[in-house]
Amino acid sequence: MSSTNENKERLACFIEEVWNAGDVAACGRYIAAKYSIHHDPGDPWNGQELDLAGYQERVRVSRAPFPDQRFTIREMVAEGDAVVMTWLWSATHQGDLPGFPATGAPVRVSGATVYYFDGGRLTGHWQIVDRLGVYTQLRQASADVSREMA
Amino acid sequence: MSSTNENKERLACFIEEVWNAGDVAACGRYIAAKYSIHHDPGDPWNGQELDLAGYQERVRVSRAPFPDQRFTIREMVAEGDAVVMTWLWSATHQGDLPGFPATGAPVRVSGATVYYFDGGRLTGHWQIVDRLGVYTQLRQASADVSREMA
Repeated sequence: MSSTNENKERLACFIEEVWNAGDVAACGRYIAAKYSIHHDPGDPWNGQELDLAGYQERVRVSRAPFPDQRFTIREMVAEGDAVVMTWLWSATHQGDLPGFPATGAPVRVSGATVYYFDGGRLTGHWQIVDRLGVYTQLRQASADVSREMA
Repeated sequence: MSSTNENKERLACFIEEVWNAGDVAACGRYIAAKYSIHHDPGDPWNGQELDLAGYQERVRVSRAPFPDQRFTIREMVAEGDAVVMTWLWSATHQGDLPGFPATGAPVRVSGATVYYFDGGRLTGHWQIVDRLGVYTQLRQASADVSREMA
């Protein structure tokens, strides 16, 4: 199997185990000693370099408001050490976010991420998420909750 | 030269000629008879299938509020018929947008686009743009203009 195909398979396992199932301990099998968030506008860790514990904390904090979150991989395009993944994401808004107390509403969003590998380990990513879509859905859900309570 | 490298070179020329220089006539050398906007949340043409005239209209309308716009290609990752392009974009907000009259403010944004080729022609794209970043900058610029006029 080529290394680009190996990288794709590893990425699919990583997304399933860590981000979908929430198995934070599994990060140790995938994340390099230093993980760089090269670009991720709107993400609280944008621009940071994380060690394993830092990455695990990012997973915990990110998943907390959306414990049933699920990434569906739409496509992977790989070349050299890079695997680009385009994805759809869905979750229920079960925990509080800044400005948005939990609404119980379903939320859907899409994004595209370039993941970088070195020797089978993930060394970082460059990502764009449709955060305006998230913001619009959360604002609508909050307005609906306020109306129900009025 | 491999077809993935040919596709990358064609995409770079297309971005430079059509989107940066605004040469709408050049679309005829790049766009397939049918061009599908598979996914582009927030884009007015999201989900549509365009012919050449339709694509040219999209370029004209999109560039009108930002006539000095410039895409800078950060990276290309290619496999098969797909070329993924991650990019930075900068422009001056010189024309009116829905809810945002022209402010003259500089705007920067980033995005990731999967372009699909068939026989050297572009057949469509799947794209995520940091539209929350655009929205935040335009809202701030509009508030600054209102304050200056008060």
